[in-house]
Amino acid sequence: MLSVEEALEKILSYVSPMGPVEVELPDALGLTLAEEVTSPLDLPPLDNSAMDGFAVRHADVAGAGRHDPRELPVIGYVQAGALPDRDLQPGTAIRIMTGAPIPPGADAVVPFEDTDEVERKVADHALDRIRIMQEAPLGANVRPAGEDLRTGERLMGRGDVLRPGEIGVLASVGRQRVTALRRPIIAILSTGDELLAPDEAPGGGKIYDSNSFSIAAAVRRYGGEPWMLGIAKDTLEDTARKLGEGIAADLLITTAGVSKGDYDFIKDVLTANGEIAFWSVRMRPARPLAFGVLHAPDGRRVPHIGLPGNPVSALVAFEQFCRPAILKMLGRTSFAKPRVRATLRDPIINTDGRRVYARAIVTWEDGRWWASLTGPQGSNLLTSMARANGLAICPEDLDEMPAGAEVDVQMLDWPEEAAV
Amino acid sequence: MLSVEEALEKILSYVSPMGPVEVELPDALGLTLAEEVTSPLDLPPLDNSAMDGFAVRHADVAGAGRHDPRELPVIGYVQAGALPDRDLQPGTAIRIMTGAPIPPGADAVVPFEDTDEVERKVADHALDRIRIMQEAPLGANVRPAGEDLRTGERLMGRGDVLRPGEIGVLASVGRQRVTALRRPIIAILSTGDELLAPDEAPGGGKIYDSNSFSIAAAVRRYGGEPWMLGIAKDTLEDTARKLGEGIAADLLITTAGVSKGDYDFIKDVLTANGEIAFWSVRMRPARPLAFGVLHAPDGRRVPHIGLPGNPVSALVAFEQFCRPAILKMLGRTSFAKPRVRATLRDPIINTDGRRVYARAIVTWEDGRWWASLTGPQGSNLLTSMARANGLAICPEDLDEMPAGAEVDVQMLDWPEEAAV
Repeated sequence: MLSVEEALEKILSYVSPMGPVEVELPDALGLTLAEEVTSPLDLPPLDNSAMDGFAVRHADVAGAGRHDPRELPVIGYVQAGALPDRDLQPGTAIRIMTGAPIPPGADAVVPFEDTDEVERKVADHALDRIRIMQEAPLGANVRPAGEDLRTGERLMGRGDVLRPGEIGVLASVGRQRVTALRRPIIAILSTGDELLAPDEAPGGGKIYDSNSFSIAAAVRRYGGEPWMLGIAKDTLEDTARKLGEGIAADLLITTAGVSKGDYDFIKDVLTANGEIAFWSVRMRPARPLAFGVLHAPDGRRVPHIGLPGNPVSALVAFEQFCRPAILKMLGRTSFAKPRVRATLRDPIINTDGRRVYARAIVTWEDGRWWASLTGPQGSNLLTSMARANGLAICPEDLDEMPAGAEVDVQMLDWPEEAAV
Repeated sequence: MLSVEEALEKILSYVSPMGPVEVELPDALGLTLAEEVTSPLDLPPLDNSAMDGFAVRHADVAGAGRHDPRELPVIGYVQAGALPDRDLQPGTAIRIMTGAPIPPGADAVVPFEDTDEVERKVADHALDRIRIMQEAPLGANVRPAGEDLRTGERLMGRGDVLRPGEIGVLASVGRQRVTALRRPIIAILSTGDELLAPDEAPGGGKIYDSNSFSIAAAVRRYGGEPWMLGIAKDTLEDTARKLGEGIAADLLITTAGVSKGDYDFIKDVLTANGEIAFWSVRMRPARPLAFGVLHAPDGRRVPHIGLPGNPVSALVAFEQFCRPAILKMLGRTSFAKPRVRATLRDPIINTDGRRVYARAIVTWEDGRWWASLTGPQGSNLLTSMARANGLAICPEDLDEMPAGAEVDVQMLDWPEEAAV
């Protein structure tokens, strides 16, 4: 039996980051940058005012105070987005708004609140003169050009993930498009004659296919582009046809057909068109797992992960194996699922030396995390997966974790955001 | 000055969940359910086999063991997705695959490994008889109909968030569409003559608009649908025209125009068409904040959040005020940003009794969280926001948090997933 880590390492060794594409900036959220970005400009482009106030020569207001103001003629006005239309003459002031360029000749800005601006306005006095009530040191309230960014400065580079802050930085240097790794296209195929498509009537002992939908949602959640191939019937022809379609994808995920049933055509088709290994992974649920590589007609080698057919096992195995594969394809370099350390409210029983992933509801109470199990841990209860916001992990070498024990929990959601 | 909590409470009091719409199941990820869902069927639909094996009467194999096998004629075969074509006769066995319905007359399943199935296959013997090497109690390996779900059982209801597990459950009862709250449309408007659109050439002291892009990305990240209105010039006409467009949205977010500049037409337009309040919030960065309600011609009242123009302040204020508003519009009921408790590597200085949100890089080392500040905390360094994966919080009533202090950090990302 493989450990979870061994299985994951093998899978990741067959998975590569996607190629670069040019994307419009608003569509780049969550993608990984595939270029080095340097600033083509200074930011701010010119020395500018950090406050609404009056641009002055600091020497002209030296020693000014509330009881010893300096009255200066106001010879101009400059607003953000405009260039000053005159230089500052000694002994004068120019009214200036936040972000506006400092007029040549000025070396400090006195904010409105250190002047009689408001009193003048209230008294309806002309604003052609202003009293400065506070001295201003050299450079006061002046943001120098290039303070944030200098032309040629490295901003970000290959491998950086584009979050709202990164996207803002790219916009601030005028980028409309960036080169980023494209999203992987993940083909999803359910297999089995017992499965009904959503538009089929129930009956005959058949059950609706749920894996296609939960796996597609999980693919999308982690940044892949799901491509639902539907259901392959238990015939060689249908399985071969559906897998043949899926080979156009970047990764193929199938569900069911990984244990020893008589009708598991998946392995026959895959053996004929590539390589396939059936693994027993030391975990519960989701022990059986298949991994292979399909040889596409164009020479590409498309990795294939075969998840168990049981809906809970499929989702648990997806989190352990498919999520890291998708993140690697997106260009991410760390794949660990977020964890918290919680106190168990219920025991976890481990009957056969596998690593148990128990569906748990994690809450924050009295300054610590608590984990309650969702009830019966039979792997066919998909409703328990819907209720859970975490997977509490009992290690391989423990027969039992009693209530009260500290347990590592893989968080399926931050608990504040989950529907618990 | 308002506290952050007071400001948020006021904003949320004007924000309501969106109305219900019917959506295709694959498009429902992240939405909130707006209906009560009960199961229209039993799941599994019939008693079925939990293993690949042989359906028998348990009485016929009582006392069987490896040295005392019972040999039974195999009178049929039933696979998953098919109905049994005959009843089990006493003293016989029917071959059965996992998930296949139990034939009438059978009351237990003996798995292949407790029979001589494999030996027979290897020896190329006929499979018309089988030796049972292990007794099976009544009901062994039989999954009863309705074990997972019973017809009429409540599955989920209004307010449940649709994650991959929930979507799988809905698919498993044959749902193709669900009624969920629609995504809110969030109009985004940057204001100021100093702003350049991405397709404009730099120069004249102007700077590229970054807020539209970072805010749009943040809106999308939290489940809203961003609608970028572009840049409003500092004229009454342009501001009125752009805000008039935005009133078709569910929430309007503007940046800049919330402090005391001369060219803040936002407030003039909003005062004429609704209500607007300018707040001072006890936080740093992002003290100035506007909140108002626009009266649409059709009678709707559209909430408006006016963020500061500074890019860092805008994003920090977005996280505190816009994110919860969007979550409430999506139908979520808890809005707290995920937090960890970390040890500070750098001091946070608090000069004026506001709550400080310091951009921090959070890492997990030696079994605990650590928070380093991203460097200068001047609010114009958007690049620091790009580097940060958390906001370390210094409370209002502390003048300083020294290095080594324990600090609450709002996580912008799980650190494993951030580009740190």
